Amino acid sequence: MALRAGVVVTGTEVLAGRVSDQNGPWVSQRLLEMGVDVAHITVCGDRPDDMTAQLQFLADQRVDLIVTTGGLGPTADDLTVATVAALYGLDLRLDAELERRIDSIVQRWRGRLSSAADSEPLRAGIRKQAMVPDGAYSISPTGTAPGVAIAANESGTLPTVLILPGPPRELQAMWHEALESAPIARVLLRRADVRQETIRAYGLSEADLAATLRTAEQDVSGFGELEITTCLRLGELEMVTRFAESAAADYDNLASIVDRRHGSKIFSTDGSTIDDIVALRLSGKRIATAESCTGGMIAARLTDRAGSSAYVIGAVVSYANEAKTGLLDVPADIIDEHGAVSEPVAASMAEGALNRVGVDIAISTSGIAGPGGGTELKPVGTVCFGIAVAGRATVARTLRLPGDRASVRALSTTAAMHMLAEALESEG
Amino acid sequence: MALRAGVVVTGTEVLAGRVSDQNGPWVSQRLLEMGVDVAHITVCGDRPDDMTAQLQFLADQRVDLIVTTGGLGPTADDLTVATVAALYGLDLRLDAELERRIDSIVQRWRGRLSSAADSEPLRAGIRKQAMVPDGAYSISPTGTAPGVAIAANESGTLPTVLILPGPPRELQAMWHEALESAPIARVLLRRADVRQETIRAYGLSEADLAATLRTAEQDVSGFGELEITTCLRLGELEMVTRFAESAAADYDNLASIVDRRHGSKIFSTDGSTIDDIVALRLSGKRIATAESCTGGMIAARLTDRAGSSAYVIGAVVSYANEAKTGLLDVPADIIDEHGAVSEPVAASMAEGALNRVGVDIAISTSGIAGPGGGTELKPVGTVCFGIAVAGRATVARTLRLPGDRASVRALSTTAAMHMLAEALESEG
Repeated sequence: MALRAGVVVTGTEVLAGRVSDQNGPWVSQRLLEMGVDVAHITVCGDRPDDMTAQLQFLADQRVDLIVTTGGLGPTADDLTVATVAALYGLDLRLDAELERRIDSIVQRWRGRLSSAADSEPLRAGIRKQAMVPDGAYSISPTGTAPGVAIAANESGTLPTVLILPGPPRELQAMWHEALESAPIARVLLRRADVRQETIRAYGLSEADLAATLRTAEQDVSGFGELEITTCLRLGELEMVTRFAESAAADYDNLASIVDRRHGSKIFSTDGSTIDDIVALRLSGKRIATAESCTGGMIAARLTDRAGSSAYVIGAVVSYANEAKTGLLDVPADIIDEHGAVSEPVAASMAEGALNRVGVDIAISTSGIAGPGGGTELKPVGTVCFGIAVAGRATVARTLRLPGDRASVRALSTTAAMHMLAEALESEG
Repeated sequence: MALRAGVVVTGTEVLAGRVSDQNGPWVSQRLLEMGVDVAHITVCGDRPDDMTAQLQFLADQRVDLIVTTGGLGPTADDLTVATVAALYGLDLRLDAELERRIDSIVQRWRGRLSSAADSEPLRAGIRKQAMVPDGAYSISPTGTAPGVAIAANESGTLPTVLILPGPPRELQAMWHEALESAPIARVLLRRADVRQETIRAYGLSEADLAATLRTAEQDVSGFGELEITTCLRLGELEMVTRFAESAAADYDNLASIVDRRHGSKIFSTDGSTIDDIVALRLSGKRIATAESCTGGMIAARLTDRAGSSAYVIGAVVSYANEAKTGLLDVPADIIDEHGAVSEPVAASMAEGALNRVGVDIAISTSGIAGPGGGTELKPVGTVCFGIAVAGRATVARTLRLPGDRASVRALSTTAAMHMLAEALESEG
């Protein structure tokens, strides 16, 4: 791949592990989609020396583009612009027009706050945010902080750099204008034509896919041209392949080998997620969930999606047994006889949701997420699922899912999505 | 801070932004808790040159300890041990005892899989995972991959390195044994005594806290000894301060200034989260939720916690209006008159959950998460909350929350937790 980039994520709270960084992954995905190879992501705190060291490291690695995120705020510990400018030997100058724009944004915000803060520090902060390195391009603020784009230096020892704000929404809103700024547009002209394809399977082990890939290595002539990564997450195995357009036939070859061996477990080859598939198949139908161990996670996941009100009618979280009987009409004697974590109870919960909420399909979970509550017969990780479809026999299944409480709950939620997709497909 | 560490996260799927890294933050938090300063986190793909460059960068930065995560699997693209060994000039040798242990683990796992994979690649993978650099310490596998600890080289140009597996559960399970391995224990002896204190506030702006800190800079003599970071997340502002024990009085001084100015918004100074506080205050009580725009997220969050079955009885997600009337007895004419997103409906939902589920306290949400559905009077982000407590008047409130659908839902969930904490406190 011709064009290489590095991403510098700044923020002590990210470095300290208190906040999970969203910007590095987001920027990385956007760059890869455009055919820019991301070689390094580095995370540094609010210390100029460490940031300078990371910028210099990326320059030494001969990346063509550095994207930094964060450190553009009004306070003293936000020092990305000053640090980059110092490394590039550029003076900072006040952009008076920018200062006025930021000031009007801040004034608008302040109007909504009841604040006793004095205004001189505020003005100092605004002035700080309006400082632009000499010769750099300023990108319109989407919050209060403008972005900055700086071209590679003339000797070529320092690459083009794009400085973006830390709040993910501000960064994302700024992305398109940033790409069009002169220094960034110029470096992007040099990018190669790279394709990326994704195969997603559920219930396929990494070892089995690895074995298939070893075979394919012999059978696909241009295998070496394909950059393959596999990743297992919540039972879903994702295989992403990046390749130049010239290797497209080799990829097709590989994809058909994978499909021949594992087709029954593959659920997506066009980038769609299981959430996309479930949403598509729910079109024109009505759904409800009845959840115990997942505690509302399936409903939350279904309603995560814009437009889900077209098919999600409601959900009942019946965490206590009395809620299973009271809200979902699960007969108390079934609970007594089989236990709350059992296929008969899961089936009855799904039917209860189907009838009570009045929908076409309902899914239920009842399981032992742990850490307590496990027995020899029903250890932690035992989860029963029920699927009730109007006019069809209710189906129940039991899985034993590994890991701790969070893992069991997350795996259960994903398993439920796959069961829904399957049930909706067979229903046609 | 005396001891500095760097973390190298490996994995193309992390670098490509397809997976959010959990290991960097986890390792960073553990190191900081022990008084080890984390200077850099770097992320690299499965390319030995890039990994070597990052390791060399950290060595050049004179860190005392490098922790790597990932790249210990059986496949060819897992190359952390070989890459580190090459940089340190150490040969790899097969640890036959380790090979037997991994083999028995894998055989046990294979028994549970129905796999057609051939076994020679499998054996090669096991052999690969049992290769240990000369003079290195092997750490017992918690999955199939052992960890490795390597002491700093004699000339001191390369620091001590701890190599850990990528699956978070395996890594975390290995941590304690890893700390006790000779090379790691030796380097940790040199760490300084560092304290970390956290103040959490809700509804306090970063600008207002920054203004307070500017004042404190004048009033607290040892202000410079305090390393302060602030971070705003879902309306919660967190201020974390790290300092040497000798600066404890300065911190106390600062903390009391912050408390004097913002005490009413501070909800935690002992590290507890709002989830901890709600759980504590729910002790001996029974709770239910009635959710529309949050779609089960509050229930999912409450039941995230081990032991929550002691107080969470159930929840109703009434996404459609018919579910609000059918499952929560919200009178249809209230919906007609005020709209589904209104305080009367939110109040009625909470009361419906209180009565139907039979609990002591119930919280409800009804809002416009977007992207569609907003009006001039009720724009996207308008969310109504209701809190019903047995024997008390039901309270309803409306917030206008910023951002996209995911943001509105997440902010609503956190707002609900704070309202719960408040209602439970005032109840005594």
